Amino acid sequence: MTYIEKLSAIREQMKADNVHAYLIPSADPHMSEYLPKHYKCIPFASGFRGSAGTLVITHDFAGLWTDSRYFEQAAEQLAGSGFELVKLKVQHMPEYINWLGETLPAGSTVASDEKLLSILSGDLLTKNLSNKGITLTHKDYLNPIWEDRPSLPTDPAFLIEEQHIGQSVSSKLAEVRKALSSFQAEYHLVSSLDDIAWLFNIRGKDVNYNPVVLSFALISQDHAKLFINPSKLTEAEKQALLKNGVEVLPYEEIETALSRLPENSSIFIDPKRNCFAYLKVLPASVKVIKETNPSTILKAVKNNTELANTRTAMVKDGVALTRFFKWIVENIGKIKITELSAAAKLRSYREEQEGFVGDSFTTISAYKAHGALPHYSASAESDATLQPESLFLVDSGGQYFYGTTDVTRTISLGKNTEEECIDYTLVLKGMIDGCKLRFPQGTCGYQIDAITRRPIWENGINYGHGTGHGVGYFLNVHEGPQVFNPTNNPVAIELGMITSIEPGIYRPGKHGIRIENLVHTIADSATEFGDFYAFEALTIAPINTTIVKKELLEQSEITWLNNYNAMVFEKLSPFLTEEENNWLKTETQAI
Amino acid sequence: MTYIEKLSAIREQMKADNVHAYLIPSADPHMSEYLPKHYKCIPFASGFRGSAGTLVITHDFAGLWTDSRYFEQAAEQLAGSGFELVKLKVQHMPEYINWLGETLPAGSTVASDEKLLSILSGDLLTKNLSNKGITLTHKDYLNPIWEDRPSLPTDPAFLIEEQHIGQSVSSKLAEVRKALSSFQAEYHLVSSLDDIAWLFNIRGKDVNYNPVVLSFALISQDHAKLFINPSKLTEAEKQALLKNGVEVLPYEEIETALSRLPENSSIFIDPKRNCFAYLKVLPASVKVIKETNPSTILKAVKNNTELANTRTAMVKDGVALTRFFKWIVENIGKIKITELSAAAKLRSYREEQEGFVGDSFTTISAYKAHGALPHYSASAESDATLQPESLFLVDSGGQYFYGTTDVTRTISLGKNTEEECIDYTLVLKGMIDGCKLRFPQGTCGYQIDAITRRPIWENGINYGHGTGHGVGYFLNVHEGPQVFNPTNNPVAIELGMITSIEPGIYRPGKHGIRIENLVHTIADSATEFGDFYAFEALTIAPINTTIVKKELLEQSEITWLNNYNAMVFEKLSPFLTEEENNWLKTETQAI
Repeated sequence: MTYIEKLSAIREQMKADNVHAYLIPSADPHMSEYLPKHYKCIPFASGFRGSAGTLVITHDFAGLWTDSRYFEQAAEQLAGSGFELVKLKVQHMPEYINWLGETLPAGSTVASDEKLLSILSGDLLTKNLSNKGITLTHKDYLNPIWEDRPSLPTDPAFLIEEQHIGQSVSSKLAEVRKALSSFQAEYHLVSSLDDIAWLFNIRGKDVNYNPVVLSFALISQDHAKLFINPSKLTEAEKQALLKNGVEVLPYEEIETALSRLPENSSIFIDPKRNCFAYLKVLPASVKVIKETNPSTILKAVKNNTELANTRTAMVKDGVALTRFFKWIVENIGKIKITELSAAAKLRSYREEQEGFVGDSFTTISAYKAHGALPHYSASAESDATLQPESLFLVDSGGQYFYGTTDVTRTISLGKNTEEECIDYTLVLKGMIDGCKLRFPQGTCGYQIDAITRRPIWENGINYGHGTGHGVGYFLNVHEGPQVFNPTNNPVAIELGMITSIEPGIYRPGKHGIRIENLVHTIADSATEFGDFYAFEALTIAPINTTIVKKELLEQSEITWLNNYNAMVFEKLSPFLTEEENNWLKTETQAI
Repeated sequence: MTYIEKLSAIREQMKADNVHAYLIPSADPHMSEYLPKHYKCIPFASGFRGSAGTLVITHDFAGLWTDSRYFEQAAEQLAGSGFELVKLKVQHMPEYINWLGETLPAGSTVASDEKLLSILSGDLLTKNLSNKGITLTHKDYLNPIWEDRPSLPTDPAFLIEEQHIGQSVSSKLAEVRKALSSFQAEYHLVSSLDDIAWLFNIRGKDVNYNPVVLSFALISQDHAKLFINPSKLTEAEKQALLKNGVEVLPYEEIETALSRLPENSSIFIDPKRNCFAYLKVLPASVKVIKETNPSTILKAVKNNTELANTRTAMVKDGVALTRFFKWIVENIGKIKITELSAAAKLRSYREEQEGFVGDSFTTISAYKAHGALPHYSASAESDATLQPESLFLVDSGGQYFYGTTDVTRTISLGKNTEEECIDYTLVLKGMIDGCKLRFPQGTCGYQIDAITRRPIWENGINYGHGTGHGVGYFLNVHEGPQVFNPTNNPVAIELGMITSIEPGIYRPGKHGIRIENLVHTIADSATEFGDFYAFEALTIAPINTTIVKKELLEQSEITWLNNYNAMVFEKLSPFLTEEENNWLKTETQAI
């Protein structure tokens, strides 16, 4: 079936059901960032393969709402599909809702597979369309026309023993139950896969990059039910879960379980991380408490085992990165190195490391002007050959059995412009200011973001992305609730959190620079003014200094940089050959 | 009547009306910061004269809820009054609401003069108490027992001509009406006196420090009604207002006017700046739109006339401050100078300046350990004598016919401890970092606050107040909507706003340091990354450098400081005697 044929098949079903608009969001019932093939609905229907967007189909219009990162790609991939590109003004905003309200007449019906709609989006659609006399309904118009639709993944899952993860499942459940009590909630639905992975000390490979397992959990004060394809677990694993008070039930049964909750009971549901369809399945008398999952907050604060293991993963990752950068610098101009071949080389060095599971996201391997595209992903068509000049940006990360890494370095490949040197130094300066900050308990991400941007702003420069994101423990590389960005998200940075600090400067057509460390919030001092926190640098990878303009750095920044690079050498050298150590010694020498 | 007698007279009325709790907030029907004597209800009922608090009276308990600034004062002033001090955990939080909910049985009634309750507080009380079966009612139990209650002030008001204020009343009304249209609001009630003063180019002296007039305004697309004691305006002034489309009506008639709004009409009311009683007066069918007053935002952005006049006021204020600091420094240890006599001297220098109207708030004249109390106000009992050692902090401001000033300087009086010198330098460093910042359009106050705190945080120090507040034009010294503080208030800093930058360090029992400039947001540059803003220093007063530890400052900070002090000399010297100039030359010399 062509995309045009699919579109008319969808419209036929719409007309038969008297439906006036059909929505296809980019999501699964777990509100995942990365989707199993079964849920890659937008590529199936339109050919667009970007990771963010919404398709809206009416009787006489079909459009993809997506943001500026994907304008070029969408224009190309949608050609001839029957879908038009609708450019979002603001990233992540559901601007199609207003469009629906303005376009559809009163009495219209909007359908979607409401398993792919978050409760937040469902509530927003209801709120904005109901007063215009427009109703929502649940329909899956893709399944009937998706002949070879991939089934849900059946790869095995596995449990991590308490000693390797620092907290037992029963202890985690007890913490969640305490939170439920404080909200007077009897039940708790968890659909988000990273929350489930954390809660049950379970991992899998059902989606790319995130080591999670398709599952749901329903928790009450005396039960914990894990809904998962039972073939994914061995009998021994099921027994181990049972010992922690967890009953394993088939994945599909979550819907029935929700529909059979006792009348007048109460359930705690995170509206951002659960689907609208399951909200509707609940008996009408059930009271719904919509708050952030307790596990989201608990998970963000890493325990000592997780931190110790993460430090080990960071050393292994640093060894791989050191070998990679040495290889690049020594071979540039001698052998052909492209963005894709470089990324493959880096992957091969990571694969040598014990405990490596896979990449934690698509490596950004970007030469020169490609670096100016913050979400660039090299393809066979774009694959640039590295030359002995300008800058090379690599943003990559690994999933290890004992931690998740995410690191960006930008290195000089030879001759550099004055602007490249200044921009590089300013990004480094911002990154150092963030990393070396001391701040009082209660400080929020927006405050740390501002301090990191200051030296870049002072030069009339800014960057369009956040300064940092939370990172999971052998789990998702993007993990809430904390974030370093300019929005007024009032989440305080707590002890034990792992967050990235990654300012950047992007000059379209010229170059892009980003330098990123992961940091761990630690206690710094208790003074008469209160408790102060600081950051431990977790990432252990040399920071290239060849083009640093020392006169733009303050002495305290120079000291931090030299100490950091000295620490990198000290921690990595036991795992390197003499030749590698010689290279790293030079690379990390004080400026 | 003693306080005890007043309390029992109030309780008698409560019992007669079957009322179970009576609230006395610190407010007037305009939600003013400073109250006319007529509305000083808390001092009348309890003897407490602090500026923030709420009295709650039940049949068997009477308490004052106030924050830590007033704990000592309240304990003293409430002695024998029948009222107990209830200590607030968080400043400005209405913690008495929870107490009422926990203390009163279902079916109880809570009364208050709802003209003294903001709509925000009234809504919060309703929301938190109604589900416990507690109802609110409007009663004034003070008036019947307040024999010599001061009447409302009758001092004349006056108009400022357009040429001296830069925008006509009709032009301001047109801007407000445009905002009302965008909210589809037919009427607009304005109760806040600074909004009214701005809208109608009117000033007066009905309260201390703020040059405002007791009045209300009711605005529609074709009418603007100013409710004010008519004796406050001359016939010529009434005619001038009429020419701008403004009808003058008696102050008391606002209530009737509100009660007679057309059925099913709509009204725009700012819930923070209007009283709950007048919300209740509206016909039930009137639709209420609760948003921030359009004038609040318009007023914050100063026009060129206001800015030019403010610059003139700043020079006059700087001349007064220069003379004052010269006098202090030259006489310390020679004649007796106390906190109060110093404040009086400063006032006398300001009074010499043409156009001076009065102080813009109570001068904080604080020697040594008194400086550590951020809201210290010297009294006859506390009045310390200045010695030729340690630090002297003066936070003061003037109302001039052409602008409002607010400036803090801390000066060395002689021998200083190492800690005083370091703390002084750190406060100066933070203040300079704020003042010399370049930032992109859209930056919010919480971002600027963080950058100002950074050097202070880095030394394990913090301060408990915000970094800055908006300032009016010959109007309130505290003016919204912008603020520099750590809360996540998402108000962007716009071109034309005047805001203070005033970090501090306070060591109880030792010393307090604060340095404050007012700054004006100006366009800095337009780069490929967007529009950048910066600050023009409006305050022109020497910054004492004798105890600056130069090694703690970066070169860019030293440059800013030297340029600033040089600018101060250049702008003030034409208005000073040769002797004064000699002193200022030394005081402002480069470090």
